[in-house]
Amino acid sequence: MKQIRLNALDMNCMGCTPGIWTHPDDKTEGYTTIEYWTVKAKTLERGCFESIFIADILGTYDVYGGSADSAYRYAVEFPVCDPMVLVTAMAMVTEHLGFGITGTLSYEPPFSLARRISSLDHYTKGRFAWNIVTGYLGSAARAFGKPDQLPHDERYAMGEEYMEVMYKLWEGSWEDDAVVRDKKNNQFAHPAKIHKIDHKGKYFQVDACHLCEPSPQRTPVLFQAGASKRGRAFAAKHAECVFISGLTKPMVAEIVSDLRKQTSEAGRDPDSLLIYAALAVVTAADDEAARVRYEDYRNHVNIEGTLSLFGGYSGIDFAGMDLDEPLAHVESNAIQTFYEGFTTADPNVEWTLGEVARFLGVGGFAPIEVGGPETIADAMNSWMEETDIDGFNLIYSVSPQDVDDFVDLVVPELQQRGVYRTSYPEGTLREKLIPTNTNRISEGHPAAKYRRG
Amino acid sequence: MKQIRLNALDMNCMGCTPGIWTHPDDKTEGYTTIEYWTVKAKTLERGCFESIFIADILGTYDVYGGSADSAYRYAVEFPVCDPMVLVTAMAMVTEHLGFGITGTLSYEPPFSLARRISSLDHYTKGRFAWNIVTGYLGSAARAFGKPDQLPHDERYAMGEEYMEVMYKLWEGSWEDDAVVRDKKNNQFAHPAKIHKIDHKGKYFQVDACHLCEPSPQRTPVLFQAGASKRGRAFAAKHAECVFISGLTKPMVAEIVSDLRKQTSEAGRDPDSLLIYAALAVVTAADDEAARVRYEDYRNHVNIEGTLSLFGGYSGIDFAGMDLDEPLAHVESNAIQTFYEGFTTADPNVEWTLGEVARFLGVGGFAPIEVGGPETIADAMNSWMEETDIDGFNLIYSVSPQDVDDFVDLVVPELQQRGVYRTSYPEGTLREKLIPTNTNRISEGHPAAKYRRG
Repeated sequence: MKQIRLNALDMNCMGCTPGIWTHPDDKTEGYTTIEYWTVKAKTLERGCFESIFIADILGTYDVYGGSADSAYRYAVEFPVCDPMVLVTAMAMVTEHLGFGITGTLSYEPPFSLARRISSLDHYTKGRFAWNIVTGYLGSAARAFGKPDQLPHDERYAMGEEYMEVMYKLWEGSWEDDAVVRDKKNNQFAHPAKIHKIDHKGKYFQVDACHLCEPSPQRTPVLFQAGASKRGRAFAAKHAECVFISGLTKPMVAEIVSDLRKQTSEAGRDPDSLLIYAALAVVTAADDEAARVRYEDYRNHVNIEGTLSLFGGYSGIDFAGMDLDEPLAHVESNAIQTFYEGFTTADPNVEWTLGEVARFLGVGGFAPIEVGGPETIADAMNSWMEETDIDGFNLIYSVSPQDVDDFVDLVVPELQQRGVYRTSYPEGTLREKLIPTNTNRISEGHPAAKYRRG
Repeated sequence: MKQIRLNALDMNCMGCTPGIWTHPDDKTEGYTTIEYWTVKAKTLERGCFESIFIADILGTYDVYGGSADSAYRYAVEFPVCDPMVLVTAMAMVTEHLGFGITGTLSYEPPFSLARRISSLDHYTKGRFAWNIVTGYLGSAARAFGKPDQLPHDERYAMGEEYMEVMYKLWEGSWEDDAVVRDKKNNQFAHPAKIHKIDHKGKYFQVDACHLCEPSPQRTPVLFQAGASKRGRAFAAKHAECVFISGLTKPMVAEIVSDLRKQTSEAGRDPDSLLIYAALAVVTAADDEAARVRYEDYRNHVNIEGTLSLFGGYSGIDFAGMDLDEPLAHVESNAIQTFYEGFTTADPNVEWTLGEVARFLGVGGFAPIEVGGPETIADAMNSWMEETDIDGFNLIYSVSPQDVDDFVDLVVPELQQRGVYRTSYPEGTLREKLIPTNTNRISEGHPAAKYRRG
């Protein structure tokens, strides 16, 4: 069996799931302090995680009841601080952990985002990954002076051109031997080996060289999490790590199979794309204690806040709907799509809106595994075997408690079974991911064709 | 006499002055590592500096010889990494030092820059200052898809509207008691106390609330360094700390007097504006050793690189000009303006282009004081007395050696004379600056009028 790979999903706000911050053990209030993040980074490195993956949004959830009031009241992924600025602090206290940080390409010119990312790749000594996001909230567009987002497919078309600019800056602007740093001969670099990229496109014009000298990885490791058809095609072309979500193993297996097929069709080695499935884990010393904890978490779920989040994702306004009515009876195509997912995942539950909210409120749109370390290890193994994923993007409920427990209880169990690493390989994040990788993006990747010299 | 205040000028590149990185003691090559910056931050805090002030540019100097080749070859403020991402690492190793970081308002929408700055104000526990810059390089405009910069005065007009948006986000979006974080009653905030700013202007439209909950200072301490007529008016209206540069005491005194007058005319207390003059200091155990060091630094000045920098500032292409011809003989109004400055500063020097470059190459456009600790302390005292400045923005040549020497030699001398603090006041950066300040920007400042509730 493949070794299990782990990333930790996070977000620079009051926790990823609405309401759980009210749990007495929860410490996500500390998200505005450096200490909160450095403690977590050290825990993840102790658990040999590949990366902390920090999602981000630039808008608010304002579909529920036609306003953002529920998001404000219950802290539904709101407020949300900039995740990029956390990286150097976390890098200081770790040696190997990767930093997969979301950067939205809809609202910032490529030139300055490319510089920020290269800077972070320097400061982390090559441990940076960029989670490429086109954005999905109309409220974000309006924060940036646009009446609404670009249509979905045009966002991706613009994204394609954005990536081309980034690759030109990262790969094509500085030749490998441009920098000499020769004190004796008073020369920093060879001017003839530094090139303006002179990009003239539909969306962007960039007549400049990259402002950063080449960082350890140049193009950072590329993360992507888009689940739509267009999103998968984008991932198959650009991503090195893709983060997916599905409530059942067959759903996940279908996505994995499709992504590998599309990667192959895009001319890349299908196994060079690492695929991680979202998974929420609630663990404790044994199954019974874990079950008690899970029920406790469910009691802290904020139903209205969760429906505000769910409404933002789906575009459906759930305000005023009956929480106890079985979803099977609701006449809405959009809701029936969600209902089918939940009922397939667990046909024994009577899925009402309230029941859906209680489920989502613990682990979001990820499946939830509850149990002691052996149960969780068994469950993770069967996910690996039945879906062809490469690993997991782990979701916490109570932070940092759940992260601590996973590292202290489940990681040793996985290591004892020989399915999880006990130390980090050397090198950049890209080299740590796949033993045959170098620090640079592979030859088959579209970024590579912009290299010179 | 007023107490002396100190800031340390820096830039996220191979040193502020071209060529000095070739000096054997220079360690600016480390600018791409976290360690370089955390060591410096600790030194500055040991020396009770108010802040590290990190300048930034988003373009390259491409006037000299009609290309950026000299900038590339000699590392003339190039390459340059993002300074914002350094802050959390430096904040981790310090308790009091302020972080005055440059953010250019010409190339990023206000919504996301406001969020990044608020995030940094949170993570530094209120030690953040924003150095407001409109940019001055055509090469930067071209990197962002524009044929050239906006005309100077229109840049400032756009800057005025940009500031209005920032103030609305920082001061007007969240009422003081909006956040309750009430775990027991399951409430994070009062929705009625969080407001979209709904800004509809000539340059910006922002229909959103600020994404960050109020940070310790809300509006960060505002730095400004523009020297033009329009720049001074902008500073008089907006800045809390202004950074100026003049080669002679009368030149500096004139700027200070004008700034205080304009601040008063803008309806603000003229003494609430803190004014810092740029000063390069080369010190050592005694005057003779300092003089030897200064001559050594002059030998490391890169003439062509310095003229590339000078050319970028002035718009004059110095390539091919005779380095040994007295500037008095050169028929160019622009050059005569510079010449007058230098010859007033030191009429005993025969100012040729080469001589100007050797001068600028050590300390840029700042006056240079050379001497042992007593000589430097005497010089600083007379700058304070004769110009009405509040303190200095210190410029190093060799880094971190010059910073170490200043802290180890000059700071104790100043402290012994009772003209420099021996410890930090408590509180946010704003509270540390002026004892009567609160953490919030003062009532007389234009930002204050956007407050609610």
